[in-house]
Amino acid sequence: SISQDIDHILETQSALSVDLGGTNLRVAIISMKGKIVEKYTQPNPKTFEARMQLIVKMCLDAMRDAITFNCRILGVGVSTGGRVNPQEGVVLHSTKLIQEWSSIDLRTPISGALHLPVWVDNDGNCAALAERKFGHGKGVENFVTIITGTGIGGGIIHNSELIHGSTFCAAELGHIMVSLDGPECSCGSRGCLEAYASGMALQREAKRLHDEDLLKVEGMDMKLSEPITAAHLINAARLGNSKADAILNRAYTALGVGVVNILHTMNPSLVILSGVLASYYQDPVQKIINERALFSAQSIKVVTSDLEEPALLGAASMVLDYTTRRQY
Amino acid sequence: SISQDIDHILETQSALSVDLGGTNLRVAIISMKGKIVEKYTQPNPKTFEARMQLIVKMCLDAMRDAITFNCRILGVGVSTGGRVNPQEGVVLHSTKLIQEWSSIDLRTPISGALHLPVWVDNDGNCAALAERKFGHGKGVENFVTIITGTGIGGGIIHNSELIHGSTFCAAELGHIMVSLDGPECSCGSRGCLEAYASGMALQREAKRLHDEDLLKVEGMDMKLSEPITAAHLINAARLGNSKADAILNRAYTALGVGVVNILHTMNPSLVILSGVLASYYQDPVQKIINERALFSAQSIKVVTSDLEEPALLGAASMVLDYTTRRQY
Ligand SMILES: [Ca+2]
Ligand SMILES: [Ca+2]
Ligand SMILES: [Zn+2]
Ligand SMILES: [Zn+2]
Repeated sequence: SISQDIDHILETQSALSVDLGGTNLRVAIISMKGKIVEKYTQPNPKTFEARMQLIVKMCLDAMRDAITFNCRILGVGVSTGGRVNPQEGVVLHSTKLIQEWSSIDLRTPISGALHLPVWVDNDGNCAALAERKFGHGKGVENFVTIITGTGIGGGIIHNSELIHGSTFCAAELGHIMVSLDGPECSCGSRGCLEAYASGMALQREAKRLHDEDLLKVEGMDMKLSEPITAAHLINAARLGNSKADAILNRAYTALGVGVVNILHTMNPSLVILSGVLASYYQDPVQKIINERALFSAQSIKVVTSDLEEPALLGAASMVLDYTTRRQY
Repeated sequence: SISQDIDHILETQSALSVDLGGTNLRVAIISMKGKIVEKYTQPNPKTFEARMQLIVKMCLDAMRDAITFNCRILGVGVSTGGRVNPQEGVVLHSTKLIQEWSSIDLRTPISGALHLPVWVDNDGNCAALAERKFGHGKGVENFVTIITGTGIGGGIIHNSELIHGSTFCAAELGHIMVSLDGPECSCGSRGCLEAYASGMALQREAKRLHDEDLLKVEGMDMKLSEPITAAHLINAARLGNSKADAILNRAYTALGVGVVNILHTMNPSLVILSGVLASYYQDPVQKIINERALFSAQSIKVVTSDLEEPALLGAASMVLDYTTRRQY
């Protein structure tokens, strides 16, 4: 029947997603319905050439696999840290979190190597697109998302569309400053949300405590050779380490104050937190809103994303929305 | 001729503007071309009843004068501190800068007493409307304005329209926080731009220095009975008072960091500063942008408004734009 045919097309139409973060380079095959069919992860190379080579190689491998999964790849969506001109498919500028990653045309070489159309946007913006299509942002006209990974990214949906800004620098919410001085940030400034509340910031503090022999507390299982991460800090705080607890509280307050700044600027109706730390941040951020936002903004809700991979899903949504626009 | 008739209509079509600030209550007759025909100023009464009575009385007096000026009043525009629902003409909530000023329907009583249509919006939003119609914002699709008076107000124009936000709390730029603690603000929070850089904040610091006998320096003309204001602080700094200078520098930095936060959220193409302190703030704010904004946002220009009275002119623009919409 015709309806079965359409179902079949919907099932097999898919996107390749690429996510370039401060730590990893990931590629995924993602179906029209937002299912992650397959996912590939490698450390993000430190040089431009190695990175471009690996992107193309991982995409070609994924395209080969896609055939066996019965997925028809319609195009490639790239989510990356840094400022992006999505009309041109160019990374304009990145912080030192991703090295050798400024004035980079991603569309031309990837499209040339894979013979597929390519869309590119900033990782936080991709996360917002994912929430709009598949997550808590469905049908919400004005919302903001903050994604905490190695760094902190943001995306703003206003009247159901992304805000990119006059120089593609809007929704750089990780670089909202909540201190006139404060810890140094990867962007060169100080006191940014990213410098207080990102995975990298918490890892930096965990290492500092560890170096001073102040991290490990009774009941904490920690091997000597283990690399120190944000998880150790959270674990130590939970087990009664008051210094770890104070650091986490400062991170919560910083993110909360940053969110209030967003409420006093854009006043969205919803704030969606995503990334591994989101569930830790949700309640403290809501508490800071109640304490420090203007009365009229205290009703704004903060939720934790239920999407497994917002940046990858959002990159896919650019492909799926554009290539299927005429059909539906 | 017909063209002379139209010129005559343009000249005489006017608005009554009301501006309710932390210090004064002002009313003006403003022509279609943005000329302030006449202006009336009184201290803003501390109680709701006295304030409403004075608004109506000042408007009635102005309407009487308008006849002698050959001005036909098309309606009343009200600019006020606090969150405003412009669809309803209601002040939702104010900080303690304007007492007894929450859940106040302004449209019904003013319209009833004057038999004229009434528009109401927040003072910062009105300032943005003024810049769009008469000032540096003419023809600029995305800009932000910050108006420094007793407090600090803000307005955001995106795609040539005001952003009001989901709970009419957008562009409350005076309550962007640039410190996790910092000085207490009229809103109940701490570390807001208003608590660092408003006229009220500088006056508070001037008084504090004066109480500690640290304000007056050689060459500074100051009478014993004179009330201490922000102007004394600026004057003292200029004459070499290093404590006054440090306080001003902190205010500059705070406003600069706040502006960078706005650039990293909305990324407008222009920032317009207005109010008596604007000319002092312009260069330091531009300097902080160069030092602390992301590379892609460093090209954003900061200018000082050339409008005499942005809030009053913006309140008038609501009247003039709405009532003449069908004619042009
Ligand atoms: Ca972003
Ligand atoms: Ca405002
Ligand atoms: Zn930063
Ligand atoms: Zn405040």
